[in-house]
Amino acid sequence: MTMTAMLPAASVGAVRELADIQALDAADPLSRFRERFVISEPNVVYLDGNSLGRLPVASRERLGRVVDDEWGTELVRGWSRWLDEPTRVGDLLARDVLGAEPGEVLVGDSTTVNLFKLTHAAASLARQQDPERRVLVTTADNFPTDRYVLEGVAGQLGMELRLVDAGKLDAALGPDTALLSVSHVEYASGGRHDLAGITALARSHGTRVLWDLSHSAGAVPVELTASGAELAVGCTYKYLNAGPGAPAYLYVSRGLQPLLRSPIWGWFSQADQFEMKAGYAPAPGIGRFAAGTPPILGLPLVEAGAQLIGEAGIAALAAKSVALTELIIELADAWLTPLDFHVVTPREASRRGAHVSLAHPQARQICRALIESADVIPDFRAAADGSGTIRLGPAPLYTRYADVWEAMVRLRNLVTAGDHVGFSEATGRVS
Amino acid sequence: MTMTAMLPAASVGAVRELADIQALDAADPLSRFRERFVISEPNVVYLDGNSLGRLPVASRERLGRVVDDEWGTELVRGWSRWLDEPTRVGDLLARDVLGAEPGEVLVGDSTTVNLFKLTHAAASLARQQDPERRVLVTTADNFPTDRYVLEGVAGQLGMELRLVDAGKLDAALGPDTALLSVSHVEYASGGRHDLAGITALARSHGTRVLWDLSHSAGAVPVELTASGAELAVGCTYKYLNAGPGAPAYLYVSRGLQPLLRSPIWGWFSQADQFEMKAGYAPAPGIGRFAAGTPPILGLPLVEAGAQLIGEAGIAALAAKSVALTELIIELADAWLTPLDFHVVTPREASRRGAHVSLAHPQARQICRALIESADVIPDFRAAADGSGTIRLGPAPLYTRYADVWEAMVRLRNLVTAGDHVGFSEATGRVS
Repeated sequence: MTMTAMLPAASVGAVRELADIQALDAADPLSRFRERFVISEPNVVYLDGNSLGRLPVASRERLGRVVDDEWGTELVRGWSRWLDEPTRVGDLLARDVLGAEPGEVLVGDSTTVNLFKLTHAAASLARQQDPERRVLVTTADNFPTDRYVLEGVAGQLGMELRLVDAGKLDAALGPDTALLSVSHVEYASGGRHDLAGITALARSHGTRVLWDLSHSAGAVPVELTASGAELAVGCTYKYLNAGPGAPAYLYVSRGLQPLLRSPIWGWFSQADQFEMKAGYAPAPGIGRFAAGTPPILGLPLVEAGAQLIGEAGIAALAAKSVALTELIIELADAWLTPLDFHVVTPREASRRGAHVSLAHPQARQICRALIESADVIPDFRAAADGSGTIRLGPAPLYTRYADVWEAMVRLRNLVTAGDHVGFSEATGRVS
Repeated sequence: MTMTAMLPAASVGAVRELADIQALDAADPLSRFRERFVISEPNVVYLDGNSLGRLPVASRERLGRVVDDEWGTELVRGWSRWLDEPTRVGDLLARDVLGAEPGEVLVGDSTTVNLFKLTHAAASLARQQDPERRVLVTTADNFPTDRYVLEGVAGQLGMELRLVDAGKLDAALGPDTALLSVSHVEYASGGRHDLAGITALARSHGTRVLWDLSHSAGAVPVELTASGAELAVGCTYKYLNAGPGAPAYLYVSRGLQPLLRSPIWGWFSQADQFEMKAGYAPAPGIGRFAAGTPPILGLPLVEAGAQLIGEAGIAALAAKSVALTELIIELADAWLTPLDFHVVTPREASRRGAHVSLAHPQARQICRALIESADVIPDFRAAADGSGTIRLGPAPLYTRYADVWEAMVRLRNLVTAGDHVGFSEATGRVS
């Protein structure tokens, strides 16, 4: 990587210098967390924590113990401890990541399955309480799986799906809306919605909100209880670093739990699981949103990820996320604007998450070239018009300010040199 | 374990002797597979392979590679290989375990979620093809989660659930039945149903069958294609040894796939996942039954488990299962009948699976005492009348004939000595 040593030449606007950046790392109260992660290829600048978080050292060790000591040795006797894991790890997430109460978070299934369960349950309840409420609302730019789940549930319940601009939610809500589904941080733009504000707005229209926290939890503050949020889901493989396809979670506020019925009735959501009775009765608490046998080997990795967040503290992580994304925006403005990039993500810190999206007509090729020839790993998301954005997601637990600097230097040099020309294909990337 | 050395005293009927049993092990063509599993406590006789299979040595190594080399090193770039894993591992299961074709099996989600997807899809299709078909049928003794899922789907679709005795299926099927859901091997009794026969019977009534293969796949022959089966699900943590809460699988015959729509619309079942288009369109093949991000760390363990089955061969495994369960029945008849036990499981080999259920008025206490004071691990299932059965599930890949002998000796001696008196509680066991 000869580019590493190169420094940027001309730029638009004043930017800090590398020495300033190194000073930020030296003063970073979270810098000690980087060594808690496996860094196999030190030359690779990994800026895709918004898609798949790195491997924590503790997770490898923890997984080895679960496999050898629990599955391998305790065998079926392990269930005496495993049965409580989905709620025990959920309580940890509630306390250290989500700002929720014990008994309000359950870990298991995928984000999509959890979205399905809560969308179906909440839409059914709304219709039961008021048959006129027949519309499910979401933002047109919401993550595809969120939109697809809503589209499917709307069809099953004889309801309608309304896709709206994020800025026009007020006009889209009314006496006909059964549920609003919103991502706290938008995957494409990196924009962050106001949890408390939208929850209150929807409530003023008699409508509940289902929040998708996948792109926010672990990197920005998520205060579910304080925001009055009633329903949420999220994944654990991004900023929670629980591994590819790790179990997701769902949140239902305690007061709403008794009113909701999951559409998937399973033996792990049955009130008295081992009586094996003829009829189904849902468990009284958050357990009613479980379904089948929980992913026992995945749960300790969620726990290990949540423990790291708890140890660092969301406030410190959020502050570093702001500083990291500010640095990206500063360097993008100075170095990349002349190269036909523009910053899609909001500039006001409270209105963005922990990743920054940079639009460019050749974003797809540039992303491919960065990965294959510059050892920088961002990801690419296609836009409706055929162009797209490069997303840079510096994870505050393990990304250094110098990593961001280095990635921006390589990105600038690559595009300046035209090295992306000829990279025509991006492989699919999983958000 | 002083009991280990004790030999049985009086018995009813002639039984083989220990030397005969040792000869069976010496001649066992599968004996070499035992060393492919981690055996942490050699004195423990593990007879709960029907609930949670042992840890394969290869799985530990494989998991370490996936964690270190794939997640830890490739990071998000791993998706270029991971995207195909659910169908690639599904194809392996299809070929080596399920007697199905490539492109007919998908690995992911839990058995319960997969039951939900296929029950909802098949019931919806039946009603669409004939609005008179409004009844979902299952056996009264079917596994609880199967019954609960059907009960929930029946409610959502405005249908009715009909619970029937397994022997009276013919009378329960007719022009009003939309779907029959049956476990190939019943969890409680160990009885095995006739895949081809019941499939044909239901078809003669214009009704499709959804098979639950959880208690059969990997231990008895499952010839889905040859049986004309169209729909099936199953777990991988029993005879497939993929670990606690491992990803489950679903099977849909190729011809039926285009007619079915999963109720859970997710980005992994979308025809063109990374176009992120506004509207949902299901993928053309088995992938349309996926939902969210697949459990990447769990899939290699399903593969490792299936590879062991494939290497041993289902025919050899099934033959050994017959011999192992025959030995249990022979010893139970001779030694346990005088102690108030009776064998619930069918005596005809083709009519049972790979586990044997022994009813006893104090089954719960005996099971507890076996685990805690005799180092024999079976499991317990409560019966509707408050009594219950001890289930003995010798897994043909790693259980020796001498293990069965030893367990039966310990069981007989324990009950003869009254050592189970005072063991009042069985912890919940997960099937």
